Amino acid sequence: MNMPAADANRVLRVARPIDGLPVAEDFAVEPLPMPEIGDRELLVRTIYISIAPGVRPLLPYKGEAPDVAQGAGAGRVGGADDDVPNPTRIGIGERMRSGIVPSMSKFAGGTVGEVIQSRHPDYAPGDFVFGGRYCQLYEAIHGDASIKLDPAQLPIEADLGLLGRSAFTGWCGYRRVADPKAGETIVVSSAAGAVGMMVVQLAKREGLDVIGIASGASKCDFVQTLGARACIDRKAEDAGAALDRLAPAGVDIYFDNAGGFLQRPVFDRLKPFGRLIVCGMAAEYGGAEQSVLPTGTILGKRLRVQGFVVLDYEDDYPAFREEVVRLWREGSLAYRQQVYHGLEEVPQALADCLSGQSGGGKLLVQVSPDTSVGGRGP
Amino acid sequence: MNMPAADANRVLRVARPIDGLPVAEDFAVEPLPMPEIGDRELLVRTIYISIAPGVRPLLPYKGEAPDVAQGAGAGRVGGADDDVPNPTRIGIGERMRSGIVPSMSKFAGGTVGEVIQSRHPDYAPGDFVFGGRYCQLYEAIHGDASIKLDPAQLPIEADLGLLGRSAFTGWCGYRRVADPKAGETIVVSSAAGAVGMMVVQLAKREGLDVIGIASGASKCDFVQTLGARACIDRKAEDAGAALDRLAPAGVDIYFDNAGGFLQRPVFDRLKPFGRLIVCGMAAEYGGAEQSVLPTGTILGKRLRVQGFVVLDYEDDYPAFREEVVRLWREGSLAYRQQVYHGLEEVPQALADCLSGQSGGGKLLVQVSPDTSVGGRGP
Repeated sequence: MNMPAADANRVLRVARPIDGLPVAEDFAVEPLPMPEIGDRELLVRTIYISIAPGVRPLLPYKGEAPDVAQGAGAGRVGGADDDVPNPTRIGIGERMRSGIVPSMSKFAGGTVGEVIQSRHPDYAPGDFVFGGRYCQLYEAIHGDASIKLDPAQLPIEADLGLLGRSAFTGWCGYRRVADPKAGETIVVSSAAGAVGMMVVQLAKREGLDVIGIASGASKCDFVQTLGARACIDRKAEDAGAALDRLAPAGVDIYFDNAGGFLQRPVFDRLKPFGRLIVCGMAAEYGGAEQSVLPTGTILGKRLRVQGFVVLDYEDDYPAFREEVVRLWREGSLAYRQQVYHGLEEVPQALADCLSGQSGGGKLLVQVSPDTSVGGRGP
Repeated sequence: MNMPAADANRVLRVARPIDGLPVAEDFAVEPLPMPEIGDRELLVRTIYISIAPGVRPLLPYKGEAPDVAQGAGAGRVGGADDDVPNPTRIGIGERMRSGIVPSMSKFAGGTVGEVIQSRHPDYAPGDFVFGGRYCQLYEAIHGDASIKLDPAQLPIEADLGLLGRSAFTGWCGYRRVADPKAGETIVVSSAAGAVGMMVVQLAKREGLDVIGIASGASKCDFVQTLGARACIDRKAEDAGAALDRLAPAGVDIYFDNAGGFLQRPVFDRLKPFGRLIVCGMAAEYGGAEQSVLPTGTILGKRLRVQGFVVLDYEDDYPAFREEVVRLWREGSLAYRQQVYHGLEEVPQALADCLSGQSGGGKLLVQVSPDTSVGGRGP
């Protein structure tokens, strides 16, 4: 546990190019002056930081970066100063971000915390907010790009997990890209992860036949509690052979959060008019695995292969939030999270997220006491 | 010229597995009894036969077939008898088809001809019809799956060219799959071919910036007359380097009729949110070239890669026909065709179509005199 004194600020910076999975030495925890806030800004004590694989392609690579940099060339170019973060890359010496989104939108953040000072009329000290961009203990956050949380309604970390960007990613991919139909067979990789949890449950609710893929028996058990008819343990069995047994007629949708060597055996089992939703490629972000698709099969089977990034679905955030809160209150959305402690744990949490060496669910790092209702005290 | 006696029927059959491009010896022209027609059927003297690359993947392969068989596993399984053709394959000894579609739809055929006998109330001897399925001189055709032609309105071969399945393929891919927007840059391969001609002209009319790719200066000149801002001669220059010069900001849509080694340099230049429309892969049907796509780029740039087959757009045929006839009558649709002569020329025409060794435009084989208004007499 590394809970700071109330008046000390610290930040996690990128220290060097990273070789495959991150290790602690790739980063440095350094002191930082307490931020001074401007008009409509808040000084926030960070409590929870979201961990998600999508930030990995933005980090510097030792050697050549794999071709999966999100937002590359998308025209959302920020400044050189990381106060206006460059959306495509995090440079050496720059602050580690809590997510991939640099925009002013209300769902862009990757932390939740408590307001210490406010120069925004809608916020007061003691409020809890979602919206921090960085792995640092105290941050100046613009009140217009934050969401005030009600701890009596939902746990404050819900905006990183249940309502976080990973869950939103799963929702967007399922609702806006996959074109799912009742009765279809959907395969979801990294099904126990923060994206997969959402996709599995939405698909099950809407009458699809859901097959998960996860690493290890424990995660597979969890995926089946979410509603999957079956879950393939990729550590214990060949995914292609398992699919031949579980879905001999083939697969309509592969919602792929993993990429890498696992992709092709599922792709090869897509039915005509099947869809490969390229949502994430955690297996490839380190550079060790790569996947390629034969165009001939795409033509012969009239497949659709589509990549998407949650950045592009900002307008859908309210609809997502409304639906997920409703399902949660109905008690029909299961959820799992795993909490690491201290800024120094961010690299390990990210490595575990990328490698699947976690217990499944959403990964968070707690960096200061949760003083909210039901929170994890100091 | 191999114009038959009026009472002799002949058919082109597949004689052996084919190694790459077809040659004459892969087929055999054989006598066939004159068909007897049933109720609502027509006896038709075939005049023109359509040549299109999409039939190649249905033919038997010497060695392993490339993974581009259209309709594979699509559930449209026919019988063993080629009177009810198997939609996925043409077996050895079976009749060569004039196209890929075995359905009873009105746009399924690949020949036009003259009605000799009719047992259908809507047709009489002397009418011209579209709708034959085979490379044979006389065929029994169901009147309900045919279109009666008016030679005074359009040349009778228009239903194989201007209104044929290749043109319809280009129209469907452009109208239903590509999601084109004015101002976008579209690259069209095999741009002088029967599909490409349609796509280039539609895109130009609607304010897209069109760049064609074709083989040879003569075809490239033709493509520019269709409205392309530029046309890359793939025999004379590197397509990637040419695109860097012609479209330094990148490409929004690659409408790919060729596949093969040409695909990747264009794919690599797609902008974020770009689309690769996999319409045809003539370069790969012989098995010598193959293309694969890196999934990482699809994610990083949020691309959509979609294969489609015209079989699946039957309901759109009337809309296509209406639009193309209107454009043609306005004089705003250019067109080119090249005519071979005699059943024995079908293999060579198909080989030329697949290899790009033709003069561009739609390829047809004329197998009997065109006695229509303005027709090519005996």
